Amino acid sequence: MRTSQEYRDKLFKMKNNVYIDGQLVGRDDPRMAPGINVINQTYDLAQDPQYDGIMTATSHLTGEKINRFCHIHQSVDDLLNKQKMTRLACQKTGGCIQRCMGIDAMNALSVITHAMDQSLGTEYNQRFLKYLTYFQENDLTANCAQTDVKGDRKKRPHEQVDPDLYLRIVERKSDGIVVRGAKAHNTIGPYADEIIVTPTRFLTPEESDWAVSFALPADWEGIHLVCRPSLPRPRRKLHAPIATFGDVESFTIFDDVFVPWERVFMCGEREYGGMLALLFALYHRHSYTGCKPATSDVLMGLAALVAEYNGIEKAEHVRHKLAEIISVAELVYAAGIAAAVTGKKQPSGTYTPDVVYCNVGRRHAGVNIYHEFEIVADLAGGLPATLPPEGDFYHEQIGPLMEKYIMRNPEISAENQHRCFRALSDVICSGQGMLVQIAGLHGGGSPVMETIAILGTYDLKAKKNIAKYLAGIPID
Amino acid sequence: MRTSQEYRDKLFKMKNNVYIDGQLVGRDDPRMAPGINVINQTYDLAQDPQYDGIMTATSHLTGEKINRFCHIHQSVDDLLNKQKMTRLACQKTGGCIQRCMGIDAMNALSVITHAMDQSLGTEYNQRFLKYLTYFQENDLTANCAQTDVKGDRKKRPHEQVDPDLYLRIVERKSDGIVVRGAKAHNTIGPYADEIIVTPTRFLTPEESDWAVSFALPADWEGIHLVCRPSLPRPRRKLHAPIATFGDVESFTIFDDVFVPWERVFMCGEREYGGMLALLFALYHRHSYTGCKPATSDVLMGLAALVAEYNGIEKAEHVRHKLAEIISVAELVYAAGIAAAVTGKKQPSGTYTPDVVYCNVGRRHAGVNIYHEFEIVADLAGGLPATLPPEGDFYHEQIGPLMEKYIMRNPEISAENQHRCFRALSDVICSGQGMLVQIAGLHGGGSPVMETIAILGTYDLKAKKNIAKYLAGIPID
Amino acid sequence: MRTSQEYRDKLFKMKNNVYIDGQLVGRDDPRMAPGINVINQTYDLAQDPQYDGIMTATSHLTGEKINRFCHIHQSVDDLLNKQKMTRLACQKTGGCIQRCMGIDAMNALSVITHAMDQSLGTEYNQRFLKYLTYFQENDLTANCAQTDVKGDRKKRPHEQVDPDLYLRIVERKSDGIVVRGAKAHNTIGPYADEIIVTPTRFLTPEESDWAVSFALPADWEGIHLVCRPSLPRPRRKLHAPIATFGDVESFTIFDDVFVPWERVFMCGEREYGGMLALLFALYHRHSYTGCKPATSDVLMGLAALVAEYNGIEKAEHVRHKLAEIISVAELVYAAGIAAAVTGKKQPSGTYTPDVVYCNVGRRHAGVNIYHEFEIVADLAGGLPATLPPEGDFYHEQIGPLMEKYIMRNPEISAENQHRCFRALSDVICSGQGMLVQIAGLHGGGSPVMETIAILGTYDLKAKKNIAKYLAGIPID
Amino acid sequence: MRTSQEYRDKLFKMKNNVYIDGQLVGRDDPRMAPGINVINQTYDLAQDPQYDGIMTATSHLTGEKINRFCHIHQSVDDLLNKQKMTRLACQKTGGCIQRCMGIDAMNALSVITHAMDQSLGTEYNQRFLKYLTYFQENDLTANCAQTDVKGDRKKRPHEQVDPDLYLRIVERKSDGIVVRGAKAHNTIGPYADEIIVTPTRFLTPEESDWAVSFALPADWEGIHLVCRPSLPRPRRKLHAPIATFGDVESFTIFDDVFVPWERVFMCGEREYGGMLALLFALYHRHSYTGCKPATSDVLMGLAALVAEYNGIEKAEHVRHKLAEIISVAELVYAAGIAAAVTGKKQPSGTYTPDVVYCNVGRRHAGVNIYHEFEIVADLAGGLPATLPPEGDFYHEQIGPLMEKYIMRNPEISAENQHRCFRALSDVICSGQGMLVQIAGLHGGGSPVMETIAILGTYDLKAKKNIAKYLAGIPID
Repeated sequence: MRTSQEYRDKLFKMKNNVYIDGQLVGRDDPRMAPGINVINQTYDLAQDPQYDGIMTATSHLTGEKINRFCHIHQSVDDLLNKQKMTRLACQKTGGCIQRCMGIDAMNALSVITHAMDQSLGTEYNQRFLKYLTYFQENDLTANCAQTDVKGDRKKRPHEQVDPDLYLRIVERKSDGIVVRGAKAHNTIGPYADEIIVTPTRFLTPEESDWAVSFALPADWEGIHLVCRPSLPRPRRKLHAPIATFGDVESFTIFDDVFVPWERVFMCGEREYGGMLALLFALYHRHSYTGCKPATSDVLMGLAALVAEYNGIEKAEHVRHKLAEIISVAELVYAAGIAAAVTGKKQPSGTYTPDVVYCNVGRRHAGVNIYHEFEIVADLAGGLPATLPPEGDFYHEQIGPLMEKYIMRNPEISAENQHRCFRALSDVICSGQGMLVQIAGLHGGGSPVMETIAILGTYDLKAKKNIAKYLAGIPID
Repeated sequence: MRTSQEYRDKLFKMKNNVYIDGQLVGRDDPRMAPGINVINQTYDLAQDPQYDGIMTATSHLTGEKINRFCHIHQSVDDLLNKQKMTRLACQKTGGCIQRCMGIDAMNALSVITHAMDQSLGTEYNQRFLKYLTYFQENDLTANCAQTDVKGDRKKRPHEQVDPDLYLRIVERKSDGIVVRGAKAHNTIGPYADEIIVTPTRFLTPEESDWAVSFALPADWEGIHLVCRPSLPRPRRKLHAPIATFGDVESFTIFDDVFVPWERVFMCGEREYGGMLALLFALYHRHSYTGCKPATSDVLMGLAALVAEYNGIEKAEHVRHKLAEIISVAELVYAAGIAAAVTGKKQPSGTYTPDVVYCNVGRRHAGVNIYHEFEIVADLAGGLPATLPPEGDFYHEQIGPLMEKYIMRNPEISAENQHRCFRALSDVICSGQGMLVQIAGLHGGGSPVMETIAILGTYDLKAKKNIAKYLAGIPID
Repeated sequence: MRTSQEYRDKLFKMKNNVYIDGQLVGRDDPRMAPGINVINQTYDLAQDPQYDGIMTATSHLTGEKINRFCHIHQSVDDLLNKQKMTRLACQKTGGCIQRCMGIDAMNALSVITHAMDQSLGTEYNQRFLKYLTYFQENDLTANCAQTDVKGDRKKRPHEQVDPDLYLRIVERKSDGIVVRGAKAHNTIGPYADEIIVTPTRFLTPEESDWAVSFALPADWEGIHLVCRPSLPRPRRKLHAPIATFGDVESFTIFDDVFVPWERVFMCGEREYGGMLALLFALYHRHSYTGCKPATSDVLMGLAALVAEYNGIEKAEHVRHKLAEIISVAELVYAAGIAAAVTGKKQPSGTYTPDVVYCNVGRRHAGVNIYHEFEIVADLAGGLPATLPPEGDFYHEQIGPLMEKYIMRNPEISAENQHRCFRALSDVICSGQGMLVQIAGLHGGGSPVMETIAILGTYDLKAKKNIAKYLAGIPID
Repeated sequence: MRTSQEYRDKLFKMKNNVYIDGQLVGRDDPRMAPGINVINQTYDLAQDPQYDGIMTATSHLTGEKINRFCHIHQSVDDLLNKQKMTRLACQKTGGCIQRCMGIDAMNALSVITHAMDQSLGTEYNQRFLKYLTYFQENDLTANCAQTDVKGDRKKRPHEQVDPDLYLRIVERKSDGIVVRGAKAHNTIGPYADEIIVTPTRFLTPEESDWAVSFALPADWEGIHLVCRPSLPRPRRKLHAPIATFGDVESFTIFDDVFVPWERVFMCGEREYGGMLALLFALYHRHSYTGCKPATSDVLMGLAALVAEYNGIEKAEHVRHKLAEIISVAELVYAAGIAAAVTGKKQPSGTYTPDVVYCNVGRRHAGVNIYHEFEIVADLAGGLPATLPPEGDFYHEQIGPLMEKYIMRNPEISAENQHRCFRALSDVICSGQGMLVQIAGLHGGGSPVMETIAILGTYDLKAKKNIAKYLAGIPID
């Protein structure tokens, strides 16, 4: 397993293909650091013996101990441990751990490449397993670039005025393929080792050029990572972990990129394109049953802390509101547990979580995220929005007055009260906070996507038959 | 295992101590039949080989095959199977299966009697195991009478103007005890074999007289069952299962009732009174993670059926509303699964489900039940409220006109459309329907009770520590 | 103005064309009485001097003092007073006052007949004004039969397999027209003097036969009123107003009914059919801004009363829940006030309330009705669902025990505590209660209908232009 | 009336007493500009003839035409026009117009100073009217500093460890008083001409030192404005109004500040302290019935625009979600209209809006604000959170690719699509956006404050009497 130092060393040697606000920058650009700090945690925690078996697993290929973020789930326990790892790691960073998308894509590929080989006689799975060995041995961090930019939402890929609005194969060559297109919302792209591409939706017979999946190093020729950093507000004096983590979102352009065959995992098998899209989504929604409870943990922790500092911790409405956040967190987590224990072993040997439980869990997280922020804001009062900047608390004349007037519970130091409200301000009154809202709504698929997934799977006919039986209507 | 015929035979031989609307009636009163029909199902389904292992279990006392409604949970699988059994049986009756309260009380007693014996050197557990053997051998149906009438809600039991407003021991004798009080909301009371009494809340040192638990035959001297039948609307022609099930609620008065020692399971051990109350509630809330999804199944089945008949099954808003009910059902069920798989073996050998998952599950059911009815009403339109009575459809002149004008989808017969709307009318526009709403809200404990249970158990301090760590506040 | 006695005298002389459960019955059938009791109130209150100007108005035709339920709104104050009258009268009956539909239909006809005459040169308005004079002079109660049975919801009227599934003109004769069809959900039909028919939706050029409006005495040849009474639970001892009011819903069949020209107000003018439908709906939704707050008044009054009796009136969560019901009531009422004060005078002289405010008000009532019942059930606890019938409280042996054990606040008599819970049981645990839920959802148009009405009227383009201006996008 | 240039000229001449992040800065600091731009609008719009009568009024003191932001409401129409002005001005700035707090404080003072003089024989009203004349003649902008920092929330002002945690009189002198304390959440403070101080809550007999109200120039000796600017993301190329507006929140410290008597409007009359607090809040909540609908207008405009650009404008779920925002906006606005038309003339001649309608309106805005953002995020998708910075769109190589891949509806230019998403990013994914959420929740009083105000005023007893009448319980 790599150390976080080794991860960064490799990262900083990559070629420059990252753009921020019109500038081509290196991966050591300071705006990248808060995102990199998040990934560091995934390496550091795996070195910590107390998290052994949670953050680590045993490779089914090599028998070696590996970072669980590189593991293919071999059992129900693997699914449960991945959920635990995700919640734990997200608690440590105060938000999205980001590295999950790689492992989710890898697991999906392990199933679909095997399925294609079984029915079509292709050799994708062998190719994938070779890549997996490399991936595990080098303890790589991967981005999954799934969401196409999609152009006109009413039109299918092949109907768009510009066919590139969904990423597609533009040329098939003896040594590989050439692809063109762009993928949006690629968290982690600029500080991942690898980018894994999958289709974004079901495809029709006309759309085999859009059925393509592959993996490439993130600094590969022709890939442009156009980035939006989401940075914590900088601290000069009142240092705190919450102010060290952030993320960078990439709008990733594939400008006629050549992919050698050994890194191509789907090439035109359009019947499997949608299945791969859905299976990645399924794993990723199971990830959300781990990460969203952690987001709730952070929100409820802050809410409980500020309620204590404000002296209202025991008020009935405060307790009921805390219980609301707890209920969201634990229902979502319970759905993930249920999805794991009712999970199925696929012919490839990989375990997949249950579709309905994953989706009702992710959906519940999505429909509650704004309300959770509302509760925290309700309990915190207006100060997170109006708290003067850090400098005022350290000004010779004004600082002592600020400390005098921020006092609430006399047994808590002014600095800790200040720390509490500054953390709240960072979480519920910042651009980053709104990113968490939007990610909580749309990340891994919006509630409407889960609704579609649920309805596509659920046996409603059985429920209609219950109704017919009770009403005395013959069941056909 | 008894047959339902044997159950009824014994029932009809019991002494008359049931009152309905000011009349002392026999247990064969026709107003009792719809409730008895529900219990019949629990015997009939256990005879059906396809439900073997779900509806039945192996007694850990005798090794005999028994009805699972008499079983003490010996494993996680027992907890999972009880949840399955509950959902299944409730689907068959279109609502509450009612017999769960007995098994939930028995499991709670199996743990608490053992715990008392361990710490206090009492002999309750042996006594209980004897009673359990009798209970399993005779395949008995029991009511659990827990909720006291409670008088002034702001006052504790010993502070009430009338101390009887919580059931209590009024005399301790050589051969047993005498109790006085009343228990409310006793579904099944008048057609149960036995009544099991438990305390309803935590008790203070002054309140050892209120710490009492026992079981008695339901027609025992001094017990008055004052009953409110909740009857389906009668059908004369359009027979349907939904119109055959109902329940009877008893307001049960213990008018200086003597309980022989062999049926006393707690007598004054007030520290254990609240624990027993809570443990029964915990098992019962786990039952709700099985039964409430079945209520949702019935509601979603009817909603999907009427949407099909109305021809709007594929409309986006219809599908989204169905997905809302599905999400409620499956999140609650998932919480029950999570509670089972994280359940614990108690020193008595009995398994208990996890407190937090049980309670977030039951709470979620409770806060959604009215909304689920709203969705069904929304999709069904106004007809369930204005559908003319059955007779009009069989009137010589008017009947054919009714059949003409009730037509929607021309491929569905008028009778089936009539059946669909009549079932809907029975479910969403009837006194029984509102009973389901109120039971869905309060049964097994209102959402506010689950909120209290969650907050009493949840490790909020750990979550505050996450907040402190992120904010840079030292963790003490 | 008529007395309620005169209203009943006329009613009981009408021909028998009412069916209940397969029987042809007279209007003096006891199952009709609870509905008639409601209408009585509209006559009795108008005789009460303290409600002068609210329950009464001055006819713009004759200058006579008339019951406001017969009045055509001549000013903003008329709209405001109608809203007040509606809330007042509904408070007196504990629910829907039922007579509003007549006045709403009459006001809509006053506008649309005038509009048709202006553009088409017809003479409907003169005919209508003659009918209005007769209506006001005889202080008539009218049902508006609007909602067609509608058959296959995906098909338009003229596309149905059976064209009668929307009421239509089947013959035009020298002395009148013949109509065929059925109208559903006709509250008040069997105890109204008159039935006013209007179209239910917009009509296409092929659908002029469905563009028809007229008024007929309710016992007219060929009209069958197939009825579903919604009765209060009978009381034998504990008499109370709540147990005297009910309603009867009619499924009204027009079996080739002849309508003489002087009672025809639209006959084929299909462009005006939808306008009439919408305008009746608009007035009726304005009625709902008066009646739904009264429903909330009853619910909040009961909730506050039971909270007082339970001794929890000052608990924070109780007060917050009461405030939730108050907020629903007063927001809906405020929307009605805003609709009135921004109302417009139409060319006919009639005032119409504002479309957007009426619809947001009615919509808000509709989306909250189930939740309001949930709140009351929450505060009342389970007893409304399990309260034994009245007779038990009057049984020689059991009665005193019931009175002993129902006690809560020792300063409230057992009888009043009993009365409070019995009223609650009638309101939140009865078939009638669910009728109120469904009527609160669908009556006057479901929330989805208001959504459509709002979107059809609202100037969204102006709001997009605000967005464009702020974003720096040229406004075209 | 002043021009905005005159407003700025005076502002930039004020003494430096503004701190930002530990620096003492001038009012011409660029971080102040976005807030000043908002206030400019209140002057510029008043010069625009099309808004005459809305943005302007006639002074009841001088008969001169004045900016309505300086006017004391003399009629129902004044209340209605103030609501209109507020919505209009907020639409122009895309958010809070900020200047309302001055006019709300002035109206409250006009009533309370008069009331004190009437009962106590003081001369506050004359003093106030002199100040008002000066205020109107100079067309001043004022901040109202109401919310004290409040220390331990469980303790009253006089019980705090540090009595200064509520602002108080520390000395009474012949020529004035000396005050000490701090006020939080003072939007506009650093770019207002004047600061008006009022108490924040009801006061007990021990608390007359905390009953104090006065007005001072914002740069007065001893006042420190410790500020947090909330800035729009800067634009270098894609200029747009939304990116020019912001606000600055002040934490305002009164460090032993001397107030001359002519500027003191309450000094120890503790019975009136709470009334003044409440009356300011009432006016301010009426302001919210104007400004919050404008916030909804901006959100719905953006949502409708992005739905159009995404090509999903006609999808049912999109239309329903737009209708949800419309309903919030228009119900809140309707409540403001109802509050105005049922407003009352006070003995001072000033009109006050109705308490219940104001509070249900403001409360409804508060409980929906997070949900409105959720809807916009739902319709916009994830791009507002991941849109690369402006510079990338103008980069020579990457810019054209960004324009290629941002395309949706081919009839909308890439620039306009870019503009739409950048505006969305500024509104729903920025620190400013979260400020709007928190201000929408807490500004003018959180929903819980409105709940308290509603319950303090509402005649619940009348509603209990309706319940008693219906239940047959004697009404005392």
